[in-house]
Amino acid sequence: MRFSSLFAPTLREVSADVELTGHKLLLRAGYIRQLAAGVYSFLPLGWRVLRRVEQIVRDEMDAAGAQELLLPTLHPQEIWAESGREARMQDVLLATKDRKGGIFYLGPTHEEVITDLVRKNIKSYRELPLTLYQIQTKFRDEPRPRGGLVRTREFIMKDAYSFDRDEAGLNKVYERMHAAYLKIFQQCGLDITPVAASGGAIGGKETVEFMLLTDAGEDSILICPECGYAANQEIADFKTVSNTDTEASAAIATVATPDAHTVQQVCDFLNTKAEKLLKTLIYMADGKPVAALVHGDRELNEGRFRVLIGANTLEMATPEQILAATGGPVGFSGPVGLKIPIYADEELRGMKNFITGGNAVNTHLTNVNWENVTSEITWARLRFATAGDSCACCGTGFTERRGMELGHIFKLAYSISEPLHAIFADEDGSDKTVIMGCYGIGVSRILAAVAEVSNDVNGIIWPKSIAPYQVVLIVANTTNEEQLALGEKLYAQLQAAGIDVLFDDRAERAGVKFKDADLIGIPTQVVVGKLAGENQVEFRDRTTKSSEVISADEVVGRV
Amino acid sequence: MRFSSLFAPTLREVSADVELTGHKLLLRAGYIRQLAAGVYSFLPLGWRVLRRVEQIVRDEMDAAGAQELLLPTLHPQEIWAESGREARMQDVLLATKDRKGGIFYLGPTHEEVITDLVRKNIKSYRELPLTLYQIQTKFRDEPRPRGGLVRTREFIMKDAYSFDRDEAGLNKVYERMHAAYLKIFQQCGLDITPVAASGGAIGGKETVEFMLLTDAGEDSILICPECGYAANQEIADFKTVSNTDTEASAAIATVATPDAHTVQQVCDFLNTKAEKLLKTLIYMADGKPVAALVHGDRELNEGRFRVLIGANTLEMATPEQILAATGGPVGFSGPVGLKIPIYADEELRGMKNFITGGNAVNTHLTNVNWENVTSEITWARLRFATAGDSCACCGTGFTERRGMELGHIFKLAYSISEPLHAIFADEDGSDKTVIMGCYGIGVSRILAAVAEVSNDVNGIIWPKSIAPYQVVLIVANTTNEEQLALGEKLYAQLQAAGIDVLFDDRAERAGVKFKDADLIGIPTQVVVGKLAGENQVEFRDRTTKSSEVISADEVVGRV
Repeated sequence: MRFSSLFAPTLREVSADVELTGHKLLLRAGYIRQLAAGVYSFLPLGWRVLRRVEQIVRDEMDAAGAQELLLPTLHPQEIWAESGREARMQDVLLATKDRKGGIFYLGPTHEEVITDLVRKNIKSYRELPLTLYQIQTKFRDEPRPRGGLVRTREFIMKDAYSFDRDEAGLNKVYERMHAAYLKIFQQCGLDITPVAASGGAIGGKETVEFMLLTDAGEDSILICPECGYAANQEIADFKTVSNTDTEASAAIATVATPDAHTVQQVCDFLNTKAEKLLKTLIYMADGKPVAALVHGDRELNEGRFRVLIGANTLEMATPEQILAATGGPVGFSGPVGLKIPIYADEELRGMKNFITGGNAVNTHLTNVNWENVTSEITWARLRFATAGDSCACCGTGFTERRGMELGHIFKLAYSISEPLHAIFADEDGSDKTVIMGCYGIGVSRILAAVAEVSNDVNGIIWPKSIAPYQVVLIVANTTNEEQLALGEKLYAQLQAAGIDVLFDDRAERAGVKFKDADLIGIPTQVVVGKLAGENQVEFRDRTTKSSEVISADEVVGRV
Repeated sequence: MRFSSLFAPTLREVSADVELTGHKLLLRAGYIRQLAAGVYSFLPLGWRVLRRVEQIVRDEMDAAGAQELLLPTLHPQEIWAESGREARMQDVLLATKDRKGGIFYLGPTHEEVITDLVRKNIKSYRELPLTLYQIQTKFRDEPRPRGGLVRTREFIMKDAYSFDRDEAGLNKVYERMHAAYLKIFQQCGLDITPVAASGGAIGGKETVEFMLLTDAGEDSILICPECGYAANQEIADFKTVSNTDTEASAAIATVATPDAHTVQQVCDFLNTKAEKLLKTLIYMADGKPVAALVHGDRELNEGRFRVLIGANTLEMATPEQILAATGGPVGFSGPVGLKIPIYADEELRGMKNFITGGNAVNTHLTNVNWENVTSEITWARLRFATAGDSCACCGTGFTERRGMELGHIFKLAYSISEPLHAIFADEDGSDKTVIMGCYGIGVSRILAAVAEVSNDVNGIIWPKSIAPYQVVLIVANTTNEEQLALGEKLYAQLQAAGIDVLFDDRAERAGVKFKDADLIGIPTQVVVGKLAGENQVEFRDRTTKSSEVISADEVVGRV
């Protein structure tokens, strides 16, 4: 490809609201452009990288025995209702209505559609096991698109689904996929940490996320430096240490706390610390109010809480709902006198003389003790793990890192196949439900991930495996006939050798071309400059910045 | 690939409402499955063919100097409003609303989005010409999905867009695309006829459709056997012959025609022929009533009529609208006394003593003459050309064929770039509007087309260029160790030689395997049977049905 014809509009600057390094670089180097929030175009360079990533994914999926197909984007509403996930994923589902009023969801994931396909076309155990995959555009109505390709509303995903006779079969393919994923990320030049995770709305009983540890990540990962246990904060298992306050119960008292809505405001007002406060959070679980209690300095693990109470939807209550459920306004809720189901974090057991909201305007209670709470309390682990919590395996204190999720594998088991009645006749003639797994990779997110972690001050540094071109061939001065002639000769030679080469034949200053080459990040640079007359060129490595003068005759061999 | 693991569920029978041969075969042979009306899954075999077609398209596009990219499916409503096509294409646009109420259309075509990309990233004539393309899933709310992959609501299209400084540039790329298209279809084994066509809602001033002539086609194509002129019925140019009735005008009369709504019923009732009848069709053009008059035995060319009157939308009037516009019910409209704009087909000039509706219940008028019509009449060509009409070029009578549209190229000129203000600074420093072309190929429809025309009573016959596998290797009797061993050996040899081979190792009767091989339609069949002991196999050609016994050692070379 000649750079003079390439559609790769580079930019000196990008909008100030672009935060991540990788996002900035992909915009500046002309790989992507935003059409709307979380909706991107892949320009020719971006598309080339995407296709190389896809090919790595495809090769490993094929090697792992998976078969590629392509499922539709338009999913009839009925099938999402049948699986029961229409309600659970309503939040992110994008819908469209056809001219007859039929509702279709834009596929955010394809468990329903593929299970429907398989249940209609598989009759016998002889046709199992079966693993199918596709590389396809998905749609999710993300509340907060961010980081360029990191979190988008339209993105390219590889999604695989396995169908087996029994758990042993599922375990086998799950392990095979786990291994394939590690190979894929390694080939893309990414150092990935597999972590235990939550199934979320996808469901399933065992699941691993493949995390790139980077400050640009959206997830908190807790890692045990001793035993190596690594888990997403939302699922990380730790040793609960309950309060063991020894002080005697004091007398409960009502105090006026005008305009003190937040934990900090209450602490300031009462001159105390957050750990003496008990946060009472009111949620609507499938439309009914419930209370969750955690220490004033802890965060509720909403996902865990939702699963614990068995709710399809869980939303923070509105001020009106809080008033109706507690009798008081937002910021003044507490467990004393509360008539709705109460769930308390295990850590709170044994806590003495704490402070809670008073379920009335500008009112808190001090010296509250559990005997003051007359409703039944369900004790459970409700809070997130944080750095310093003790690893459940070995007791060592966790360290906390940020992680970007690039892959996710799930043992779905029967969570989809059961509601969809995906059955087969087993060897003994009995009807059995097929057991499933699903396996996703964020293909477009991989671009963002590599650009985020593989760069320097001058631009992106693509690994050879996924670079848009293997080599960029730069003629320093295109008005110099000797240079141009040697450049054209090398361009022809490299093309003839089947090498993907970007030929910078533009009538720009050499400095501009060098800057663009660094920005775009092709791993090898060949510069035809002043030594052209001696049939010599400069051979540069984008990563190491090493440079050497070699004979032009050696170029093809070296590349 | 081993057939025993392949997900290719074949069917003996398909639903009775499946009409087209190709559709039946793609279902029966396990290439596709329907999820909803006009929404299909591509199973592994179908996906393989699709990818081979895509690669042919990609190679020719690249060779023609086009650059591949990938644009989003979610199109902000604003950009469709800006181009003015939101109203014109409303009919087929599928919309979705995000959580903030923003409306997005699911891309049915990408002129707006790519022009937006180019206008924001191109400044100078130095960056032109530019041709960009993508291979992507499109969405259209088709009123009548049909023929399996022929007309779907979700389909794969290659769409290219060219941006040039001037008309000479556009003409050059248009010719290059025309030539590339012919090569693409030829490589897919399709005999294509380019025909002049209408731009339709896409717009543009010159456009050619690439038609496969087949009875399964949806379009009528008129072909001049003398000069070779070929055009879609909607645009075909012919010599208008106006009526030259010589009889004297008779006295207009009102006749009761109870329950005679249709042309046929009126003819039967009045004992006359359709050509004596004048059909008065009432339409709503952008919401206002208009009348179109054609001979009783002619069809109105709605597309031509819409363009003629400059309407964005044109719909048949409802019974209520007809009553309001004419004073009479459906089936009894006529031009006499009509107060809405009247357009009459040129052919009707000179017609005498004709029959029209009376704009009243159960009433027609006989012996109507043009002097009875007091409103102003606009004369124009309103009817479709049909077989027998005279070619405008050479006067020869047309023949009529059915055609399936597989590709379409348009000179858009400024129809999109002007409303979107896609400008560039020309060499003299002045601002100019970029001139555009667009070029589409129905990638998924090509599968349907090939299956429709390349088959026999036993199944599909894929051309080698796009077959899912190059060869199917069949072990006639897998319980015979000699046969199985030779099969495995050949399978390994073929794979090692880089040949895409489907190895039928299933424990089925030989007859089942032969039938499936014919149905699936892989061009070459190698059968390991009774001669395995002598190291001999049967080498069969799916197309010619020729078969010969060759040494197993020759197989790789022959394939």
